[in-house]
Amino acid sequence: MTNWNNCLDLADLSTTQLQEVLDLAQDYQAGKQAPALKRPVYGVNLFFENSTRTKSSFQMAEKKLGIDLIEVNPATSSVQKGETLSDTLRTLEAIGVDFAVIRHGQTGWYQELVENPYVTMGLFNAGDGAGVHPSQTLLDLLTIENEFGRIDGLKVGIIGDLAHSRVAKSDAKILKSLGATLYFGGPDSWYSHDFDDLGTFGTLEEILPELDVVMMLRVQLERFDEANRDAFTAVDYYQQFGLTQERAKLLPEHSIIMHPAPVNRNVEIASELVDGDKSRIFTQMGNGVFARMAMITKVLQARGLMEADK
Amino acid sequence: MTNWNNCLDLADLSTTQLQEVLDLAQDYQAGKQAPALKRPVYGVNLFFENSTRTKSSFQMAEKKLGIDLIEVNPATSSVQKGETLSDTLRTLEAIGVDFAVIRHGQTGWYQELVENPYVTMGLFNAGDGAGVHPSQTLLDLLTIENEFGRIDGLKVGIIGDLAHSRVAKSDAKILKSLGATLYFGGPDSWYSHDFDDLGTFGTLEEILPELDVVMMLRVQLERFDEANRDAFTAVDYYQQFGLTQERAKLLPEHSIIMHPAPVNRNVEIASELVDGDKSRIFTQMGNGVFARMAMITKVLQARGLMEADK
Amino acid sequence: MTNWNNCLDLADLSTTQLQEVLDLAQDYQAGKQAPALKRPVYGVNLFFENSTRTKSSFQMAEKKLGIDLIEVNPATSSVQKGETLSDTLRTLEAIGVDFAVIRHGQTGWYQELVENPYVTMGLFNAGDGAGVHPSQTLLDLLTIENEFGRIDGLKVGIIGDLAHSRVAKSDAKILKSLGATLYFGGPDSWYSHDFDDLGTFGTLEEILPELDVVMMLRVQLERFDEANRDAFTAVDYYQQFGLTQERAKLLPEHSIIMHPAPVNRNVEIASELVDGDKSRIFTQMGNGVFARMAMITKVLQARGLMEADK
Repeated sequence: MTNWNNCLDLADLSTTQLQEVLDLAQDYQAGKQAPALKRPVYGVNLFFENSTRTKSSFQMAEKKLGIDLIEVNPATSSVQKGETLSDTLRTLEAIGVDFAVIRHGQTGWYQELVENPYVTMGLFNAGDGAGVHPSQTLLDLLTIENEFGRIDGLKVGIIGDLAHSRVAKSDAKILKSLGATLYFGGPDSWYSHDFDDLGTFGTLEEILPELDVVMMLRVQLERFDEANRDAFTAVDYYQQFGLTQERAKLLPEHSIIMHPAPVNRNVEIASELVDGDKSRIFTQMGNGVFARMAMITKVLQARGLMEADK
Repeated sequence: MTNWNNCLDLADLSTTQLQEVLDLAQDYQAGKQAPALKRPVYGVNLFFENSTRTKSSFQMAEKKLGIDLIEVNPATSSVQKGETLSDTLRTLEAIGVDFAVIRHGQTGWYQELVENPYVTMGLFNAGDGAGVHPSQTLLDLLTIENEFGRIDGLKVGIIGDLAHSRVAKSDAKILKSLGATLYFGGPDSWYSHDFDDLGTFGTLEEILPELDVVMMLRVQLERFDEANRDAFTAVDYYQQFGLTQERAKLLPEHSIIMHPAPVNRNVEIASELVDGDKSRIFTQMGNGVFARMAMITKVLQARGLMEADK
Repeated sequence: MTNWNNCLDLADLSTTQLQEVLDLAQDYQAGKQAPALKRPVYGVNLFFENSTRTKSSFQMAEKKLGIDLIEVNPATSSVQKGETLSDTLRTLEAIGVDFAVIRHGQTGWYQELVENPYVTMGLFNAGDGAGVHPSQTLLDLLTIENEFGRIDGLKVGIIGDLAHSRVAKSDAKILKSLGATLYFGGPDSWYSHDFDDLGTFGTLEEILPELDVVMMLRVQLERFDEANRDAFTAVDYYQQFGLTQERAKLLPEHSIIMHPAPVNRNVEIASELVDGDKSRIFTQMGNGVFARMAMITKVLQARGLMEADK
């Protein structure tokens, strides 16, 4: 089990540890004051891929914890001169930066770094290529737990581009480990057998009536351009696999709709549903700040940079 | 009349409201302390078009008011994944951002948003396409009032690319509503009949001797490339329509020269005049901080986020 | 001698002034608290060229001194509309910015500005084209003095692309003025006769056994593409001029290895040496924060913006 030295993959946490960080996120949401920093703490958010919500949500969490941010834009940094990620991090560490939040296109960008004896700063994975996205998973868990008071025994469907979604991979594994029953949907050609052991694949018509929670995934529109490989357009997709208002009627009364966003309205989900009663999409974003505050708190406490909780 | 919920177009304000915000800007300039925030307030500056002075001036105003800024760069945000402006704003609002300052190429970008029941954060227009530029207009009013103690009865000339200038449109309407007499100059082909009801069009030689204030507009140099439509170059422009040192002698002794900047020296105005006694060009920029502090104060007070003035 | 109004070229300082700023940097490194600011002080970091370490190091130094930063990105500023650097600075000064840290591709970008009566803000040179890099030189001096307790009498070698390195020019002149004996190495075609009066040019095999300090310069890899002018590749370079593990054995036991970074591992220096016992490369980066704190302190004190040292 991890000692919270970093936060790279929630699968490294024990169920107890997961529950503790979720509880802390709920406490922050309920107004708990963050424990004091033991000295000024410096963080950096390094996003090698575009992001609005993850990056701004981390910023907000960091500010609420009283952390000072050093601004580094990878697009105008020495990364452009061919510097390796580990040398960039060692530079920042030498300068006095205590932790880095990193989104990077390379799956498992952190593997080498955690074995590199010269990189000792705290590392947070804000999304690694086709890997995982732990802060998104944590906010998804928080959203579900806030709604149902538990995860164990719930039926959760994840629908869309499963093969390419780090959210899907990240969430499915953890949800199952916490006792949820999983269902998958979307185009056959976008399914991955990695999910075979985690749940049941079916049509939306089969799945939707079962679900407590439906998580729609983002369609990467650029994929429709790839040599018509999948031979459908955004309109086709919506008709065949989108959560239309018609299909949403199949959902149980008490169920909720989630989406990691950004949303393509009327591609993977009807615009009205995004703004409707069942939607928790913007709620998820708000929860993201508390989830990230909790993650960062755990790591700073493990590193002796923040007082213990009272 | 507006209730200061947002600040999108000064034409929405009553004359009394305009005078109040100008008075507050003058108070800030005289050293008045900003009222305290009732809780931490978070703002974001979203510039979809290049800017130095407007963006840095808003930053300075925000810092002086004690506001925490979340940094979002539209060029590396989810806007690049096709997210709508309203969904980006709802995201930021969900994260806890209280207001956004936005410059956007689309004229009237805010129209839909103020009718969108899901966007409730404060909105400031920092320039909308060929629309208006209220914080620039407010700083222009402040500069004139600081100089002459009034706007009513003054003669103000606006010269240059009137048809494409949001400063011209924004300023002319408000100046006239406050009792100024307006004159317009520049190439016929760059004039717009929108200005017919607001004042008199004439040659620089006719206009300049009348003026208390001359506002030179920026020439968008790229317009000279457009198929030679206007059949002149920067040098031609300067000779025919520029405020040369020779032409500046036509101005009354007490008159002042303004320009929204950035200036093309020796295109729309002689370089020596930019730095001369009559120039208030850099004064305008300094005034911009106080004008923006006043605008933001009014909105934060209307929203219950800041204490009332003492 | 300079009065510390700006910090543009260390060659402007007397030996006494240089020693004072180095002493202050050492005090900061030893934990000295920065003197209080007399009022809020606003700075801006304007990097017209890519940078990670210099930019983030200045940020850290500024934060530790309690300075408020205004963020301006030259890539999305009015510089793109053709505004001159002096007008951009006058704008920022009008807005209330007290000093600017500038890296710019033009050698001697500051020459005109210090003579411009309208630009009165503090200016720090963070690298000017093929000119100098005073904050890098100061941190290099600090690193050497921390190691040997003196600079006078030391033997320092600088090896690599001397003709194009502002670090080489900057460091060599100052090191010699402080009593160091200099040696130069690298390809003949990358040498410049500007160094003739400063020290001795020789092969690595000749030089290395003499040195207390060897400073390896970064190879700008793009130079290998220039029409094969130098007729060698990165591999050739390493074999002929790189600090290989074999060549490093020629260095005296007590000697140290420095590099301004970013490093091309296995081009100018063996990767193992970067991480080895003799390397002070990451130490240099850490020292950079204290060197920059000291430089900024001197300028703010000269400008009456910061209390005197106790």
